[in-house]
Amino acid sequence: MTKESRQWTLKSRPTGLVGPEHFELGTTQVPEPGEGEILVKSLYFSFDPTQRGWLNEGPGYMDPIQIGAPMIGSGLGQVLASGDPEFAPGDILNGTLPWQDYAVVKNEGMLPFTKVSTDFPLTWNFSVFGITTLTAYFGLREVGEIKEGDVVLISGAAGATGSAAAQLAKIHGASKVIGVAGGPEKCKWIVEEGACDAAIDYKNDDLAAKVAELAPDGVDLFYDNTGGPILDAVLLNLAEGARVVVCGGIASGYSGWEMPEGPKNYLFLILKSAKMEGFLLFTYAPKFGEAMADIGKWVQEGKLTVAETISEGLENAPATMQGLFTGKNKGKTILKVADPD
Amino acid sequence: MTKESRQWTLKSRPTGLVGPEHFELGTTQVPEPGEGEILVKSLYFSFDPTQRGWLNEGPGYMDPIQIGAPMIGSGLGQVLASGDPEFAPGDILNGTLPWQDYAVVKNEGMLPFTKVSTDFPLTWNFSVFGITTLTAYFGLREVGEIKEGDVVLISGAAGATGSAAAQLAKIHGASKVIGVAGGPEKCKWIVEEGACDAAIDYKNDDLAAKVAELAPDGVDLFYDNTGGPILDAVLLNLAEGARVVVCGGIASGYSGWEMPEGPKNYLFLILKSAKMEGFLLFTYAPKFGEAMADIGKWVQEGKLTVAETISEGLENAPATMQGLFTGKNKGKTILKVADPD
Repeated sequence: MTKESRQWTLKSRPTGLVGPEHFELGTTQVPEPGEGEILVKSLYFSFDPTQRGWLNEGPGYMDPIQIGAPMIGSGLGQVLASGDPEFAPGDILNGTLPWQDYAVVKNEGMLPFTKVSTDFPLTWNFSVFGITTLTAYFGLREVGEIKEGDVVLISGAAGATGSAAAQLAKIHGASKVIGVAGGPEKCKWIVEEGACDAAIDYKNDDLAAKVAELAPDGVDLFYDNTGGPILDAVLLNLAEGARVVVCGGIASGYSGWEMPEGPKNYLFLILKSAKMEGFLLFTYAPKFGEAMADIGKWVQEGKLTVAETISEGLENAPATMQGLFTGKNKGKTILKVADPD
Repeated sequence: MTKESRQWTLKSRPTGLVGPEHFELGTTQVPEPGEGEILVKSLYFSFDPTQRGWLNEGPGYMDPIQIGAPMIGSGLGQVLASGDPEFAPGDILNGTLPWQDYAVVKNEGMLPFTKVSTDFPLTWNFSVFGITTLTAYFGLREVGEIKEGDVVLISGAAGATGSAAAQLAKIHGASKVIGVAGGPEKCKWIVEEGACDAAIDYKNDDLAAKVAELAPDGVDLFYDNTGGPILDAVLLNLAEGARVVVCGGIASGYSGWEMPEGPKNYLFLILKSAKMEGFLLFTYAPKFGEAMADIGKWVQEGKLTVAETISEGLENAPATMQGLFTGKNKGKTILKVADPD
């Protein structure tokens, strides 16, 4: 017996800002799960800037989503029926799911499915215990080589990765954490509610002057989630031996992987013996357990929390994704599809 | 008693390509050396891309040369009279000297004066035993973390630093060395006379396609002396864990420190967990002795040599400097001013 489900497929490849016009909402018949398959009911979807990259023809760290194929994302799904002995009806799993109300899936993706705990709110799997926190953790420690006393600057500081990075920087002994966000309200928020000591408003401030004012001895560690003009401003204000962690390019979300402009001040890396380094979270998979133990401890101690912006309804998935790139949300962007049975 | 000498001073700051129009040739009266001072007769001057940076208003790793002040460079000078007990008449010293026939100087610059050996040709102090070879040595080893089997790509491969880097890459076990140079003649030269296994002609080749063809599994180590379009082409073709050594930006010599465009493909650093890192040679000063011992051994073994392009006459100093940026020279660019007495 099949089950009817709504389904979002990719209609066309965005060349700039992604939006609802690039997706199509249809229906699909979801079959009974076969051997090794699991029938899930979607509960929540996570939205992450990296999903924008999946819509480009390539190259990327995974195959691009094909036109006409279902859009996918990190999701929490309740198991309704299972041909996989590791998951039983009633379990809630965290894994890559298609943007559907119901789906038959197999545990064979880049990140294995995990059974989630019910000891804390389900959405915490995406926010404070999500891959954005892990990304900030490894980006600061392994790539940024954070040291006690560092002056740390973080772009996209009101986002999920950025707000976690600000708190983690403090936990690791940063002497000052400067956050970059868009508009006075978000700038106020990252200082008053977040872990930032000072804020830079990328929509209104003179970036190079403001960085120089707030970090007169230079920036030791720049955790860059956005790229764009702030990257050039920081390159002018690096401390000796500075580390620029290239975590993302939200500023490039408008035009795919083609940056409108590269960091023209990159030669200042020479003057300051500084580095810019990128990374993929999956590289650190062997250390995820250790990281989650640290993160769990800091959450229990009240040192680490991540705000959530939750919208509702599968029909709003593309608009929610767009919100990631238009600076609408604070903290982790989540879509609720249904309550568990 | 003073001594009359020709002297090149800085007339105006170039905003693009440096040339004779930015300097003025006059005469100056050189006094007898006082205590701690040395009267030298200039024999040879070295020309290095880094000198272009000294002409900009700043910021740089040293104070900019002022308008009206003498232009300086690495020089070999014969001591004619000395108030410094470490140097005696007849000695030949290697140090920062003004572009003059004669000058009174003090041993107080960033790099201390050294007495040079007469066991090998004087110009070797600038070519195979010069700071360009040291730069390639530390850039490859300390910043580029060169490993046996690496596919190494080198821009400015017909230059002094680049041609030394190609040979040093081979010495350190690179599986393939690809050089970038301008025009078919230089490209032939870096393969037939230099240590490159293959060449890319930045004036005529489709850069991204050629890098992909020559390094089908990606570039492990890019030693970048030039910046510009080749940097973007390599960023599209990085191997996992690649290292981009930012050694210089000759391509930016036309416009001072302002790059015409930054590397717009820098986000590929994320996909390949790669880094771009700059450095200043002076950082490694404590290891210079060790490095020179290695270099001396490789020179004796015939594994390392650096070509020289020598012009003559102090009056040609600015034109010789310009040649660094217009791709006229092979190997080390040197100007001969006079023979030793």
